[in-house]
Amino acid sequence: MNQQIPTLEAIQAAHKRILPFIHHTPVLSSTSINEIAEASIYFKCENLQKVGAFKARGAMNAVLQLSAEEKDKGVCTHSSGNHAQALALAGRENGAKAYIVMPNNAPLVKKSAVLRYGAEVIECAPTLEARENTVQKVIDERGAAFVHPYNDYRIIAGQATAALELYDQLNGTTLDYLLTPVGGGGLLSGSALTTKYLSPTTKVIGCEPEGANDAWQSFEHGKLVPSVKPSTIADGLLTSLGDKTFPIIMGNVHQIITVNDAEIMAALKLTWERMKIVIEPSSAVCLAVILKNKSLFAGKKVGVIISGGNVDLAKMKF
Amino acid sequence: MNQQIPTLEAIQAAHKRILPFIHHTPVLSSTSINEIAEASIYFKCENLQKVGAFKARGAMNAVLQLSAEEKDKGVCTHSSGNHAQALALAGRENGAKAYIVMPNNAPLVKKSAVLRYGAEVIECAPTLEARENTVQKVIDERGAAFVHPYNDYRIIAGQATAALELYDQLNGTTLDYLLTPVGGGGLLSGSALTTKYLSPTTKVIGCEPEGANDAWQSFEHGKLVPSVKPSTIADGLLTSLGDKTFPIIMGNVHQIITVNDAEIMAALKLTWERMKIVIEPSSAVCLAVILKNKSLFAGKKVGVIISGGNVDLAKMKF
Repeated sequence: MNQQIPTLEAIQAAHKRILPFIHHTPVLSSTSINEIAEASIYFKCENLQKVGAFKARGAMNAVLQLSAEEKDKGVCTHSSGNHAQALALAGRENGAKAYIVMPNNAPLVKKSAVLRYGAEVIECAPTLEARENTVQKVIDERGAAFVHPYNDYRIIAGQATAALELYDQLNGTTLDYLLTPVGGGGLLSGSALTTKYLSPTTKVIGCEPEGANDAWQSFEHGKLVPSVKPSTIADGLLTSLGDKTFPIIMGNVHQIITVNDAEIMAALKLTWERMKIVIEPSSAVCLAVILKNKSLFAGKKVGVIISGGNVDLAKMKF
Repeated sequence: MNQQIPTLEAIQAAHKRILPFIHHTPVLSSTSINEIAEASIYFKCENLQKVGAFKARGAMNAVLQLSAEEKDKGVCTHSSGNHAQALALAGRENGAKAYIVMPNNAPLVKKSAVLRYGAEVIECAPTLEARENTVQKVIDERGAAFVHPYNDYRIIAGQATAALELYDQLNGTTLDYLLTPVGGGGLLSGSALTTKYLSPTTKVIGCEPEGANDAWQSFEHGKLVPSVKPSTIADGLLTSLGDKTFPIIMGNVHQIITVNDAEIMAALKLTWERMKIVIEPSSAVCLAVILKNKSLFAGKKVGVIISGGNVDLAKMKF
């Protein structure tokens, strides 16, 4: 396993490795959202990625580096959702059985998707402890290779490729800011590394729900504060930072800003309505941050990574 | 006004003319929808176009060809929705006041959008007669230039540019079929012309709701049958073919296939859920046709033009 913070070369190698297996997602802009925000926003649409989330990048990068023997024994993880689908897909594409430990309260749409990719779902109580114990059992009994949702340099390098593509797609336009949601920090830390290497004047901002503000607390206090009883509509952002993601964030992220659930849902509705794309609440956090802090972003060029689009449509109310 | 069926050169000129004012929309594919359909489907996403619909193309192409004197007097049209927004935008971009005659039962989201673009909305009863009388009054009183939603060669040439881009984006992959929805026939006739010029082995199919099957009837009987009391969830497809669109369709379209509203809504839900894009019911008609006629499309390469994404989210129930 890679035991080093990903270099630019590692991120570029990850991109080359995963390219045949992922979508090259578009960067979209909306005149009407730009008018409302008074900024120029470039949305990198990872909701249009395979499995409907950027998580396909990291999982594919990790599984593609396993040996044939490791693939034979399968792969496993715990995940509140999108990483689960991503590992299930990566397993299927690489001939590795995927064992997915999932909280028993995960959205139905996420469980069904995992099953569609041929993975085995193993349910557990919705606590970090129950998840980790159940995963350990799978590792012990089946010899499956564990692929952590974010606290793994292979994952971080994979997630970093979304920003890599974004900078390329901007054709030389320099961003003032790059915003990503932050849950466990895989996307944020990867995006911050890519930005440091390719666009060092761009400030990276992590966007987080108030009801799960452990990254904000960790960043403010300079030490890893775990997520305790998080409560937010942004169900992809409940997890704590890890000992690999946190130092990268501490060293390379400019700021973490929080928004509440009403602000998140208003940004979500605006995105569906004006941009005609389905995004999940966890992805609306960035636009909510922009709309709440208009003076900070006014007149600026702002990149946003739309992290995913997996929602249970039956539960959406506007 | 161009009085001739658009040539390839006219369509290419239209594309060059409108390019600075429109989005170059992506072509998306979904592994899971391909698995369900047992076909390879390439979706040209005009829901991601300006104003959320392909209609931006035709309206922009028409208004860009007006003289300065004509622009000064403004432009007008009647439209059930997307052409209204498109003409409002084209007017704004060209310094021409847009007068939009709109049925008083049009979705709120469509009226608001027109107002946002600075147009003037003139409401009338929801009948073709009332619309045409009201438009005539605007022409007589203000001298505004009338831009028909579809029965106009400038509009047809503009709409034809969506397929022009699609064929280019396919990088040499030859489609067996190209499907578009059919209402008044602007998109279908334009797409059929582009296909004749650039991909003559590709069969073009018009997709229509059963509750508004006037194009199917016209095609079957070889004469223009008007739309009488249409009733369908696909509210963009209520209009009759015109004397300019119908002959092009008769001569260049392979088939027209109808589907019912339940089939349309199932295809819409599948698209939102798997592709993470917001499409309007009128755009789901094509995927509904594919899923209903699996043996026809199995193993084939199928292009689909997603016509738009303007829906009133508050009214969507899954």
